[in-house]
Formats: sequence, C-alpha cells, structure tokens
Amino acid sequence: MSEYDLIIKGGTVVNAADMVKADVGIRDGRVVAIAESLSGADREIDASGRYVMPGGVDSHCHIEQPSSTGGKNAETFESGTRSAACGGTTSIICFCPQEKGSTITPMLRDYHEKAKKACIDYSFHLIINDPSDAVVSELPGLIGEGHRSLKLFMTYPKNRVDDSEILRIFEVARSNEALVTVHAENHDAIMYMTDKLLAAGLTGTKYHAWCKPPVVEREAVHRIIALAELMDQPIQIFHVTCAEAAEEIRRAQQRGLKIFAETCPQYFVLTEDDLDKPSREGAKALCSPAPRTEEHQSALWSYIRSGTLGVVTSDHAPYNVHTPDGKFWAGDNAPFNQIANGVPGLETRMPIVFSEGVATGRIDLQTFVAITSANAAKLFGLYPKKGTVSVGADADIVIWDAEKAVTVTQDKLHHDTDYTPYEGKTLTGWPVTTISRGRVIWNDGEVDAEPGWGRFIARDPYDYIAPRGVFPTPFNPVSGELV
Amino acid sequence: MSEYDLIIKGGTVVNAADMVKADVGIRDGRVVAIAESLSGADREIDASGRYVMPGGVDSHCHIEQPSSTGGKNAETFESGTRSAACGGTTSIICFCPQEKGSTITPMLRDYHEKAKKACIDYSFHLIINDPSDAVVSELPGLIGEGHRSLKLFMTYPKNRVDDSEILRIFEVARSNEALVTVHAENHDAIMYMTDKLLAAGLTGTKYHAWCKPPVVEREAVHRIIALAELMDQPIQIFHVTCAEAAEEIRRAQQRGLKIFAETCPQYFVLTEDDLDKPSREGAKALCSPAPRTEEHQSALWSYIRSGTLGVVTSDHAPYNVHTPDGKFWAGDNAPFNQIANGVPGLETRMPIVFSEGVATGRIDLQTFVAITSANAAKLFGLYPKKGTVSVGADADIVIWDAEKAVTVTQDKLHHDTDYTPYEGKTLTGWPVTTISRGRVIWNDGEVDAEPGWGRFIARDPYDYIAPRGVFPTPFNPVSGELV
Amino acid sequence: MSEYDLIIKGGTVVNAADMVKADVGIRDGRVVAIAESLSGADREIDASGRYVMPGGVDSHCHIEQPSSTGGKNAETFESGTRSAACGGTTSIICFCPQEKGSTITPMLRDYHEKAKKACIDYSFHLIINDPSDAVVSELPGLIGEGHRSLKLFMTYPKNRVDDSEILRIFEVARSNEALVTVHAENHDAIMYMTDKLLAAGLTGTKYHAWCKPPVVEREAVHRIIALAELMDQPIQIFHVTCAEAAEEIRRAQQRGLKIFAETCPQYFVLTEDDLDKPSREGAKALCSPAPRTEEHQSALWSYIRSGTLGVVTSDHAPYNVHTPDGKFWAGDNAPFNQIANGVPGLETRMPIVFSEGVATGRIDLQTFVAITSANAAKLFGLYPKKGTVSVGADADIVIWDAEKAVTVTQDKLHHDTDYTPYEGKTLTGWPVTTISRGRVIWNDGEVDAEPGWGRFIARDPYDYIAPRGVFPTPFNPVSGELV
Amino acid sequence: MSEYDLIIKGGTVVNAADMVKADVGIRDGRVVAIAESLSGADREIDASGRYVMPGGVDSHCHIEQPSSTGGKNAETFESGTRSAACGGTTSIICFCPQEKGSTITPMLRDYHEKAKKACIDYSFHLIINDPSDAVVSELPGLIGEGHRSLKLFMTYPKNRVDDSEILRIFEVARSNEALVTVHAENHDAIMYMTDKLLAAGLTGTKYHAWCKPPVVEREAVHRIIALAELMDQPIQIFHVTCAEAAEEIRRAQQRGLKIFAETCPQYFVLTEDDLDKPSREGAKALCSPAPRTEEHQSALWSYIRSGTLGVVTSDHAPYNVHTPDGKFWAGDNAPFNQIANGVPGLETRMPIVFSEGVATGRIDLQTFVAITSANAAKLFGLYPKKGTVSVGADADIVIWDAEKAVTVTQDKLHHDTDYTPYEGKTLTGWPVTTISRGRVIWNDGEVDAEPGWGRFIARDPYDYIAPRGVFPTPFNPVSGELV
Repeated sequence: MSEYDLIIKGGTVVNAADMVKADVGIRDGRVVAIAESLSGADREIDASGRYVMPGGVDSHCHIEQPSSTGGKNAETFESGTRSAACGGTTSIICFCPQEKGSTITPMLRDYHEKAKKACIDYSFHLIINDPSDAVVSELPGLIGEGHRSLKLFMTYPKNRVDDSEILRIFEVARSNEALVTVHAENHDAIMYMTDKLLAAGLTGTKYHAWCKPPVVEREAVHRIIALAELMDQPIQIFHVTCAEAAEEIRRAQQRGLKIFAETCPQYFVLTEDDLDKPSREGAKALCSPAPRTEEHQSALWSYIRSGTLGVVTSDHAPYNVHTPDGKFWAGDNAPFNQIANGVPGLETRMPIVFSEGVATGRIDLQTFVAITSANAAKLFGLYPKKGTVSVGADADIVIWDAEKAVTVTQDKLHHDTDYTPYEGKTLTGWPVTTISRGRVIWNDGEVDAEPGWGRFIARDPYDYIAPRGVFPTPFNPVSGELV
Repeated sequence: MSEYDLIIKGGTVVNAADMVKADVGIRDGRVVAIAESLSGADREIDASGRYVMPGGVDSHCHIEQPSSTGGKNAETFESGTRSAACGGTTSIICFCPQEKGSTITPMLRDYHEKAKKACIDYSFHLIINDPSDAVVSELPGLIGEGHRSLKLFMTYPKNRVDDSEILRIFEVARSNEALVTVHAENHDAIMYMTDKLLAAGLTGTKYHAWCKPPVVEREAVHRIIALAELMDQPIQIFHVTCAEAAEEIRRAQQRGLKIFAETCPQYFVLTEDDLDKPSREGAKALCSPAPRTEEHQSALWSYIRSGTLGVVTSDHAPYNVHTPDGKFWAGDNAPFNQIANGVPGLETRMPIVFSEGVATGRIDLQTFVAITSANAAKLFGLYPKKGTVSVGADADIVIWDAEKAVTVTQDKLHHDTDYTPYEGKTLTGWPVTTISRGRVIWNDGEVDAEPGWGRFIARDPYDYIAPRGVFPTPFNPVSGELV
Repeated sequence: MSEYDLIIKGGTVVNAADMVKADVGIRDGRVVAIAESLSGADREIDASGRYVMPGGVDSHCHIEQPSSTGGKNAETFESGTRSAACGGTTSIICFCPQEKGSTITPMLRDYHEKAKKACIDYSFHLIINDPSDAVVSELPGLIGEGHRSLKLFMTYPKNRVDDSEILRIFEVARSNEALVTVHAENHDAIMYMTDKLLAAGLTGTKYHAWCKPPVVEREAVHRIIALAELMDQPIQIFHVTCAEAAEEIRRAQQRGLKIFAETCPQYFVLTEDDLDKPSREGAKALCSPAPRTEEHQSALWSYIRSGTLGVVTSDHAPYNVHTPDGKFWAGDNAPFNQIANGVPGLETRMPIVFSEGVATGRIDLQTFVAITSANAAKLFGLYPKKGTVSVGADADIVIWDAEKAVTVTQDKLHHDTDYTPYEGKTLTGWPVTTISRGRVIWNDGEVDAEPGWGRFIARDPYDYIAPRGVFPTPFNPVSGELV
Repeated sequence: MSEYDLIIKGGTVVNAADMVKADVGIRDGRVVAIAESLSGADREIDASGRYVMPGGVDSHCHIEQPSSTGGKNAETFESGTRSAACGGTTSIICFCPQEKGSTITPMLRDYHEKAKKACIDYSFHLIINDPSDAVVSELPGLIGEGHRSLKLFMTYPKNRVDDSEILRIFEVARSNEALVTVHAENHDAIMYMTDKLLAAGLTGTKYHAWCKPPVVEREAVHRIIALAELMDQPIQIFHVTCAEAAEEIRRAQQRGLKIFAETCPQYFVLTEDDLDKPSREGAKALCSPAPRTEEHQSALWSYIRSGTLGVVTSDHAPYNVHTPDGKFWAGDNAPFNQIANGVPGLETRMPIVFSEGVATGRIDLQTFVAITSANAAKLFGLYPKKGTVSVGADADIVIWDAEKAVTVTQDKLHHDTDYTPYEGKTLTGWPVTTISRGRVIWNDGEVDAEPGWGRFIARDPYDYIAPRGVFPTPFNPVSGELV
C-alpha cells in the first residue's frame, strides 16, 4: 500500500498568509504531509510553475431555491456544484429558505435530500423570513446540527423582516452561537422608488439601479450594524457594492464590533451601464444590490485591501434569459421590477477575482486565498477542514495557472444557466485542477465530478471571533442579566 | 403723539452675528428705529449694562397636548406662554397632533381655539401619525395657511410612522415646501429592550436610559437622513443628545444635505445619574431621548460651536409628579415605561443656555442669540418678524442681565407643572424684561402677560435654505420627472 | 444743521446674520440710525431694489511690498485702495514685512508713511521672517499699537521660518494676544520637486502646480495646526485651496482648536488648466498655492457653507506680465520657479464671490457678508467698527446691485496691474456705490476716492475668540506655569 | 542516517493565518516536512498541548549602539541575542548608525564584526543621520548587500534629518528598493517644551512625557506620511504610542499608501504614571516616545486588530540604572532630558504580547504570530526564510506554553541590563523551547545559545508590497520621468 493516495509535486503552496514551495501528500481525502519532497503515491500531479491553493469556499450561492423575485432557479445541485468545481471551488454554502408561516425543518430535510446530488461539499444558511415561535423553537436544534448561520433579508416582500423580527433572530442566533448574514437594503425606499419610476413610465432594466441607489444600501447597512451593536451579535453583510456602505462597515469594525462583510465579482466588473442595454442584454446584469460605477469598483478593492471586506462570494442566482420561466417569467416586456434578480457566477468567481485582483497587482496571492477561501471558511465554521492547504485539512485543493488567459464564453462554462454576464471578457489566471477531498474532479479541461460525492458539512460555532464586543448598557438582553 | 411707543435706551443690542450699543425705538409693536440716541417716547426702559436681544423662539414645546406616553399635560396655553415669557421667550411653536385614523383639520381648529389664551405669539407643527389619503389631501391647504412644518415620530406606539409612511410624508412636505421635524429613535429596539428589562425585573426609572442607549438614537438619525437624502427633503432632527448622533448629522451636512438639528437644555445639565434616584426624583428627569453622560454634554457644546446643532429648544413636556394624572398616571409604582416622558422647561431654557454656555465661555453672546432665537426663526419661517432686533421686526425683545444669578426653585417659576428638574441649580444670567410686540409682559419680577395677547403666526416657506441638495439618481420621485 | 450727513434710503440692509428693509442714517462718518424711515440729510442715496451691506474687509493683500518670489509689486497704496473701493471693499489689511536680520520698526514706520496715500482704511499684518531677540523685544510694543496679527511663511527662501521659529513666534503672539496668520506649504518638498522638474526640463508654468501638489499644502496645514495646538495659539490659515487641507482644518476645529481659515476667489475660478497655457497666459494664473481642479473648487464651497472656511480674501499680489520688472523679472523665458507668484484681485474679489456664490445659489446673502466682511473684521479686531452696517459702526458701506452683469476686462478695472486673470469672465452682481466713513468714493461708475482719506486702524485683541483650547499637558509653556 | 535531525511532535502549528495539529520535521536547519505523523529523527521534542510557532522576529532593537541620548548601551550581541532567544525570538534587526559627517561602510564593517558573537540570526537597518553625497553614493551597494532598510530620526540632535534630507533619503531608498523606517516626533517642539519645562524647574522624569505629548508624535507621523506620499516610498513608522498617530496611519493606508507601522510592549503596559515615580524608578520607564495612558493602550489594541499596526517590536534600548554609565550618565540628579532614553525588552516582548493580547482575548493566536514574527519578516525581506513554520523555511521555532504564568523579576532574565521595567508583573504564556535553524538554544529553562551561531541575513527587497501607490502628479521625481 502506498503511503499517499496522491502527491501534488513541485508547486507553490499558497495559504492565506503563507506561500512556500512544497509537495503535498494526500491520503484518505486529507492532507497528511507537506514536505520538500514526497514520494510513494498512487498518483502524482505535477504542479511545477503553478500555485497550489485551498479550493474555493463560496459561502453565498442560491441553488434549487425559490426566487425572491420570481422565476425558476436555473441550477440543480449537480450542475451548480459541477460548475463551481470547474472554477476552482470545492465548498459551497447555499440556502434553505423558510417560507413565511411555515417551519424550517421540513424544507431543510428536503434540501438535504436535493443536495445529495452535489459534486462538492456543501452546507446551508437558514433563511428566516418569519421568526415565529415555532421557528424560534426549532432553530436551536437545527443550529446545533451544524447549520451555524442564519440569513435575513431587509428587503423583498416575501422575505423581509422588520427591525423587531431582526432582534428576535439576533436573540436566537446569539443564544445558539450562529452567525447572521444579511441582505441589507431599505425595503420601503426601494418600493417607493419603484412605484414612482413605473408611474413615470421608466420601466427599462436601467431603472433597476435607480430604484435602489447606494443610499438605500448604506441605510440598511448602518441600521443592521446598530441592531447588531445593541445585541452584541456578530453578523456578515452580504454583497457590499459601494464605498459608502463599506465605510459604515469600516467604522463599525474600528469600534470593535464584530461586523464582517463580503462583496461579489459582479461588483468588480459590472456597472450601471451594463443595465442600460437594449433587449435582454440589460437583464443579464440585473442583480441586487445593483451594479454601481467604476469609482465604487475601485473603492471596493481599497476596502478589500484594508480588510474591511474579507470575503468574495458569487451570490450565484441563476435565471435563464431565453426561457419563459427565468428572468422573464413575467413576460418579455416585463418592467425592471418583475425580472428575476441575480446573475450566475459560481464558475467565474475565482477567475474574476484573480484576474482583476492578482493579475492587475491590486492584491497579492495570499489575499486572493484569504478572500476566496480561508476567510469564509473561518467565518462560517468550516476551518480548518476547509480554507487551507495544511496538514489535517480536507484535501480540497485547486491548482492554479496564473498565466492562463481565457476569454469567457457561455459554451465554455459548465453551469445550467443559459448565459453568462461576462461573455467575451478575457480573464487571466484559471484553475487547471480541482481536487475535492483527494478526488480530482476537474483537470486540464476534463470534468470528473460525481453527483453525490459532495457531503454536508456540519459547521462549528464561530468561537474564533475574538473578542466579543460589549453591550451599550451593562445589561445583556439575551440572557436578561446584568453584565 | 410721540414718535415711539417705547424706547429701550442704553443697552447693547445683540443679534445672531452683531452686537452694538444702541437705543431701540418701538412703535405699533415693531422695531422702527435703532440709533445712537432716540427720544420722544411714551415710555423708556433703561437697559444700560444689559443686553437687548431678540426674544426667544422656542420651536419645540408641548402644550395642552395628549401625551404619547400617558399622563395629562400639566400646562395650558395661558400658563405655558406666561412661563415662557418670564424666561425670555416670546414665540413658541407647539404641536397639533393628528390622531391615527383621523384628519388634522378638526383638531387644528380646536388647537387654534385653545391657543387663543396664549400670552405670546405661537404657531403649530402638524404631527402626522398616519399619512392617510385624507391627510395627504388636506395637508397642502393647511401648510398653505402657514403651518409650514410637519412632525413625525419614529417611535411611540401611538405615533410612530414606518419608513414607507415617512417617504409619503416627505413627498407631501417637499411638494408643499414644508420642513419636517423628527423624533428619531428606533422604535423596535426600544420596545425590545424595554420588554427584556421589565422581564428581568429592572423597572426603575434608571432603566429608562438603558432601554434607549445612544445607538438607538444614532440608528434613527442615520436612517431619517438617508430617507431625506433620497427625497432631497430638508429636515430638522429634534433633541439630539449624544455625540454619535450629532456626528451623523455633521457628516450629512458636510455632504451638502439640508439636515438641521436641535438639542435641549436638559441634555446639557441632566445625566443618566439623575434617573438613578429613589422615589419620584428619578421621574423628574425622565424624558426621551434619555439624558446621557458628561462626555456627551461636552460633545454637544462642541457640535453647537461648529454649527452642527443650530437650535436649542425646551422640548417642554410637562407632567406633574405629585398628582395621579401626571408622570405617575399608571400608579405610584409604575415601571419606567409607564411613566410619562418629558420635563418642563419653557422658562428655564434661555437661562440654562446662557449660564452653561455664555457664562462659562463655551459660546459667545451672538451664538446664544442664534441658538435660542434667530436660527429657529429662520428655519421655521418666522424670520425676519421674529429672531432679530432689527428695523421692521416685531418688537419681541428680551433685556438680559448677564450678572444676575438665581437659584432655581419651583416657587420662583411661573409654569403650572408641580416641579422643576433643576431645583437648587444656580444659573447666572436672567431676563429682566420681556417684551412681546412692544408690550412689556415681564419686568423686574412682575408678570404682566395677558391671555389672548398672543397671535397665531402663519409661517413662510423655508426658501432661505439654499442650495438644495440633489437626488441620488437623475430622477425626482416627487414630481416623477427626470432631472 | 441736518441730523444726518447722508441717508441711504429704501435698501435692504444685509449683515452677517440679518437682512431687513431699512433706511440708514450716517453722521460724522458713522452709522447713527437705522430706521423704517429717515429724513433730514444733506444727501440721500436711493438704494431701493439694492442691498446695503458692510463694505468689504480684505484681510490679505500685498501692496508696495517686496516680493517673496522676485518682481516688483505693481500697486501703490493709492492705486490698490482705489481699485479695492471700486470693487466694494472699504478696509484692507496688508503686510509690513520684516527683513531677515533686521528689526520691524523702521520698516513699519516706512509703511505707515507709504500708506498715507490710501483711499480707504488699512491696517498691517507684521510678517516675521526671523524671530530674533531684537524682533521679539519690539513686538509687544508694535502689537500694542494695534498691529494685532503676525504673519509667517512656511515656504519661500527669504521668508520661511522653521518649526522652532514658529514656536517662538507663537509664544510672543500668545503673550501679547496677537493672531498668527500662515502661508502653509512644505518648503523642502516644493524645493525638491522644483529641482526635479527643472532637471527633467519641465519648466513651463504648468509645472508650477506640479511642484506643489495638495499634499504639500495639507502637510503644512496639519503641522501648523499641531504646533498651534501645543501652544494653544489661535491661527488663521491663509489661502486654503484643496479639500484635503480644508479637511484637516475641519478636524481641528471640531476638536475645539482655534483654527481659522480663508480661501480666495482665484481658487473658485482658476484651475491647473489655466497654468497650462502658452506664452504669458499661463503666468497670469500663477500664484501660490497653485490653482487646483474643479473638484477642489466644489469642495471649497462645501467647506465655506459648513463654516470651516470663514473668510475670502483677495491675496492680491500684483505683478505685471508685460513689463520686465513684473512676473517676468527673470526674463521672458524664465522657468516657472522664477516667475513672480500672485494674481491681482482687490477689485474683483467681492464680485467673484457674489457671482459664483450667491448668484448660483451656493450661499445666501448673509453668508456673503460674513465671508467678505464681517468674519474678517471680527477675526482681526476691526469689529464692530468694520464688518457690519450697525449703529455705531463706521459708515463703510457698499450698495450692491445683485442683477448687474459685467464682463470683466482689464480696461474696466482700476488697479495698476497690467492684466486681470479673469479677462472675459462675466460676473453677476456688482457694487454700485461704495462709502468709506460716510464719504461716497465710488458711485455709478465714477471714482471719487481721495488719496490720504484712508486711516490706519489700530486693531483690538481677538478677545471674542471664545473659548480657548487647552494645552496638551497641564503646563503652559508660554507662562511656564502649571495649569 | 536519520531522515530528520529533529522532529517536533504533537504540537499545534500556528502561523499567521493557519493553525493545525501536525508534526514538524527538521533537517539541516530547515523545516522539510509537516505531517500528521513523522518519525525517524535523531531527536524528538514532545510539543503536545503546546503551540509550535515561528520564532520571533524583533525588527527594532538597539545593541552595542551609541546612544542618541547619552549613556552606554548595556547589551552586547552575545547577551542581547541570548536574552532574545530565551524570550522566543530567533531573529533580530538592529541598527548600524551612520555618524554625521562620516560614511557608513566602516561602521557597518565594524558592526558585522561585533555581531559575530550573536546567538541568533541578525540583520541591520542603516541609520542615516546625514545623507551626504558620500553616503548617497555608498548606499546602493550596501542596500544591495542585503541591508534593505534605512532608518531615519525626525528628532534627537545627533540624528535628526530635516524634510529636505528625508526626501533625499527617500530618493535613494526608492531607487534601490529599500524600506525606510522612521522615529517620528517633532524635534523642535520637543526642544521647545524641554527648555520651557526645565526653565520652570520641572526636571523630574515625569516631565519627559510632558515635553513630548501625543500631538508631537501625530505631527511627525502625518508629515512623514505626506513626504512618503509625495515620493511613493513605502515606510514603516516605528513605535506608535497613541490613538491620534495611529489614526493618521489608518487614514493613509485607506488611501492606498504603503504606510506600515509598529508599536512596542512598553506602550501596552507602561503609562505616564510609571514615569511619575520617585528616585530611579521613574527612569526605568523613560523611553521615547513616552508611555501614554490606559485609553491609548486600549486604542493600540484596536489598531492592532484592524491591521493598522502590523508589528510589535521591543525597541530594546538598554541602559543600566545602577551604574554611572547608563541611564544616569549625566549624574544622579540629571534632569529628564539628560537621562538615557529606552527600556530593555528583547526577552519580555513576546510574553507581554501573548499575555496582554492572547490570554486576555484581545487577539487570536494567528494574530500573535503575525505581529511578533510573520509581518516583520515579510516587511523586511526575511520571509519566507523567517516568520513561518513552513516547508523550506529556516527552522526558527518557538514552542509555547500558553498556560505558563511567570512573575517577571530581574534575576529570571538573561539580558545584561541591570533592571526590567516589568519587575513583579505576572505574564501568562511563555516559550518553553526556542530553536534557531534547527538548534535548540533554550529549553525548559536551560540556555544553550552559542555566541557565533547567529548569521547575518542579507535581506530581499520588499517586492511583496503590492500595489504601489501613485505620485500626486504625473511625474516621478526619482526617475525624473513623466508617468
């Protein structure tokens, strides 16, 4: 019997802070040795001239999930995770949504069932649309089973929770050590602006950005921070798109609050102008929050570098543009507010971040690993199994060719969505090999992903998040005790 | 016939920016001449060694108004305005509240009737608790009649409006050139904290401050600013109490937004510690937002000096502590959330600001006039009739003795409330004479205020507020037009 | 004998905070009455439809002064003050420079002599280039005579003082209650950049802006603030040009420091692009600090509105461009660093501020008066003689036609400089009448200024600047005492 | 022959971002394998229950160096590096100072000679006191030999360079890819305050803090940032002590500038009060900048957590207090300005940071490694040889017992200084084993350090610092080219 199932030879191992030339030895799906020179494996992969990095952790993607804005999600767990793997990602966290008025447990069981087709490991955020007594009662159990993060929406009619409900969700999260993730936009402002725009006959996709300008995002970001501050509850703000929202986050972090935040590749490369295109083209870039301007793109990189924004996820939300059940579920001439929100992005996430970030010199390789893999793994309780090429970690590894330039076209991608918003864009730096728990699932253009290979990851509490903040008064409202 | 009805001789006339030695000639209730030396009057007042300043404009006081938090308002228009006059104030703006589900007009007529007993001039903010179609329809008329400001509450169950309603109120305000004033605290957070404190048995007046810490105020201030920014609607934030809320206002002003703000004397001299007193003493300082700490007091002066906070009003909200219909309407042992919120302060407002501000060297005399009179007059459309000792202005004048030190006691005051929160506090600088439209109504300790002397002031639009901000997108949601 | 020498009838009197319709009565050079209706004067001026405002106070102008950068000052006290009067200004503060190694007294006597030709009132800042023992000894006397402000340069080889000398100047200023004004740019950085640009053959006027980018100004502004903070010495920063310098000032003010600041019309209307012109055109806009960009112009207005920048002066520094003794003293092809720095601007100062500020809606009329007259008068101890149309004040008055549009051309101006940098620019709002201590010196296009009419103004200490800051440690280095 | 010279078994390997349980295999002084289980070594160390971390990199310490403030440095390379090793540090960067008027080369050769006694690896910053032509000429060669960092002082009479010299130093640094480190305090302000304090008879050690309050540090920090911005030169600010200096650094980093910064253990645990002690006790805490207050200590941790301050060094500057050649070289009653500045700290550095940081929950273990080792290694070109426990790195390792509590006393330390400022302080978390390139030099209380074992480390350029900033104008003053 060989000592290793697989050895990755001659590459440069890059982690969130380190970068060394070494061989990586894998056995039973885990990294068991990193050394100057290893031998004695069933299989060897030559990684010379390439970077050996932890496989991506995409902690924000929607798969087989009912839409908040109509339309049918174009992806299955099989297609979505296969596509993710081809883009270098080896773990995803997607969503199990509660329906208002219902409990989560049945839906969650259903999701666990659906997810059995996954090609890579997965976990779930629990979307709480209605923190009823029944839901509050079942959550401790579900969180304890490893669903260590809740998601709440501050907008969308079907999803939004008000401040009172937010506090209730924070209370159960804090008691049970779950992180809360947030879609932060002011609902009433969006509804108001939408009504006014439609009434004025401004219905094109371009006006999607007008109904939700940055101030709408900044308001909600500031509000959720204030509520989290009141409760001393760690939160992660999803998909930050603009300088002013990022600045609120930075201010909060500087005060010592446990506020974390992510952005997404679409906010690095799309702008409002992409919405201002004729026909179906505008809809291809229609997502929420809306793409902004180049100034905001530049600011996002600055907040990435300062650590304010620590994670880049895909927010993969795939709707077909050429079928009647996708983006245009409400008809070909649907106004902007009846077009499904979201862009596909599981597969292009890491290449975009690499190309726009590393290849341009905006960030270094370690930061690339941090924001595409390690930070999310830590924040969501996957670390040290995921997010690092280290002894003991799962052998979730991507081998990266920093020089490889690919012009993105729909036919090269492996998702089930019928378009990519990045059609024609050339990206430098692509994964050549993706390994999931020791199994090579993507190599030199060949997919060998097996539906069912992926396993559910029961996640740990966020105990690494130290130190805790403090309550604004000497009183812990969650425990009801003086502190 | 004499050329003047009254001449104020030998004083130093202080306005918001100017200070000169001059005589002031008054005829028919107005200032008609300011000169080195005037003679030929029926009556002369010797003001040598004293400051001749515009009578105070108290643009935030509650008189004969149903309480948001229970209890009977202790003041009538007669007692309240008499008390104000004894403290140097010659104009008030109080409130006509809409009841949810009703229209404003009947209530407003009723208020106009009640106010006929006023001893000094008055006007009304219209409190909108429910921007129903009926209310939105009647508002243009009411605003046009000179009720040029609306008030909204972000908290209190009977009053609070949600973001959607706020936008509706802003729309009607913007279309009709009314300013909107705001009580900014996050309602849900207060309710949540209150429930938790009560459940923990923490019911004393001290915990009033705990249920609404500064973060609760900061959140609402930031939110209302964001909504105002979206609509390009000028607003005034009421009773700012803490550094962090003031800082949000400063940031908004620096961006060019038309955000105005006031604070109140109680936030200069009371602290949380005043709430932490046995028996009824704590209730005497119980108001909303809650008094803070000395650090916040000091910060408020700093924001006064930088102009961020431009107005100091009384927020006079008088409830007796020794009668069963006042503070303790819910019983002698009522928990903090069932004690009527508010402190009396019409009469002590200007002396506190003078004593704490001018006498200590924190501000100069012109700033005193600005924050107690001129700025409010301008902001609320009373200027140049009120807020200045200038030719053409109403002869609303206070003659001030900067050296006079008085120890405040309940028996020296002229209100109808049965206590003062400032009992025993010595204040340096008091009005010796108060003149309303040429009539001396307070002089050397003698009141000569006549119920019915006061007149309603129909106010002008806020056209002085230049320049307007801009909408976040090239679209005016109020008009529905591209801009 | 008439009661008044002059009555200005029917105008709207505008002061720094007030605006009222009134007649103004003048006797013996002072305003003695402001009233609804005055009569009985030797002369009446009809000001109906016009604004009656305090004459401008230009607290920063160079007249008959040796240049810091070579070239002969093109103006005499006669021509300069005549020109100022035609532009609405009635008081100037110019400079008496000390020469390194000499004392000030002889130079000052000489300046007093020269200034006897002035047509309007004047005073002097004392430029300290070398705080030698002799100078430190004579300063208390000179300050006591009413030269209540010192000026120091942080750049220019002939002028610059280092930090040690700055502290010495602050010490004598603080002991004797003199304000210190500052030209704040980092000298070494400018020298370094200049050397490098010249060495690279980049000698055109355009590169003047490159040798002193905003960071060079921001550095010096922050440094002088820090030194003033250490000594608790009030200072005024001259000619702030950029957002980043203004932001440092704002931060200091917010901390309670007595930091004041001005900007100049050239920084509202000129940009770097004006330097990037062929031949002599670029030199016409060459001044220090250098003109910036439109973004900075816009930011300056924002800082004007928030009060951070309280004064707008001309920094009149006139050098002819068509004579060999002016801008081009070093030859027609002189590199940028050998062209005299400065632009003429006494006459156009108020029209530019009015046109760009009031006529565009950026500021209101009272702010116009504040920044062109009242604030400087107060800051420099001229108030209440100057800076206000009030009883007791000198009758220094400008009557303004807000509608009058004039296209600026060199031949319309009254200075002795051979160009204007604003040639061809149309400005809306001009003075129609200028009155100096009751004497009409400019009226409807006619000059009646008399050399010698102007008087020296012995200025008062800055006692109005309250409150003082505090020392960083409990020690007053000036007095040597614990505090 | 065994496969490994040494195996560290069973510990938890902690790097700047990662933490995993693994064995570490060492051969020929380098880490050659990290694996789940290793065997086959000459020697094994059981690290179970302990942390295996990169040995400390102390990038700021003074050894056998002439003092800036008088007195004889108490340490030799032998004693200093032995002491460092006992505290877990395996690399130091100390200083080779240029004397004004001399060149560096002879001094540097001399230092290389002295350093041959070192027990651990070492490198040198070159202190430039006088960037003469001769020095500027020799620097490229010296930098090229691996002295990749220059140091400059903004204060101390013997050392300080003015802004012009700073720019010259930046120019040579930028051309040759050297980092510049800075002691940032305003010299003139310190001299001025010192003179005034002494003149007032305030001579005690307490007044050392008064002569250099935080504003003096903030000024210099802002200035050096501005100069670095002008030149696009990366710099590291040494020994940041206060919130206001850290805030300037944060603002600069946010703008994308390459500004790095460190603080030191003394600023976490000493305060001004330690200077205010009788007799020699005050002198024990006398260092520059001066210790501040608890508020500043708390702020420093906050800036550590946000990454603004990335490195913690000892600033070891050892002077005896009981011998006449040390702190009190100027006599037993020397005033504060004639007492040698500095505290010893090589050995206590890591324990203080661990105890105050990790044991209290202020930072996590990875951050501990980052600030005590990895970040400095990267910043100064030692990485990846130093600063990480990774394959290929030098086997510079410390094995840490997080539970071990030791009360610091002078007799327990291994330095040659005759006191420790931390006498009596109990610290939790100590190194039990220190390994330098595979050699165990400190183990369970036994020192086995060999003078001469340490080697000079020729350092690499700072190429990891990406991306570069930009020049304020389109001109590179160093190259003289348009950009």
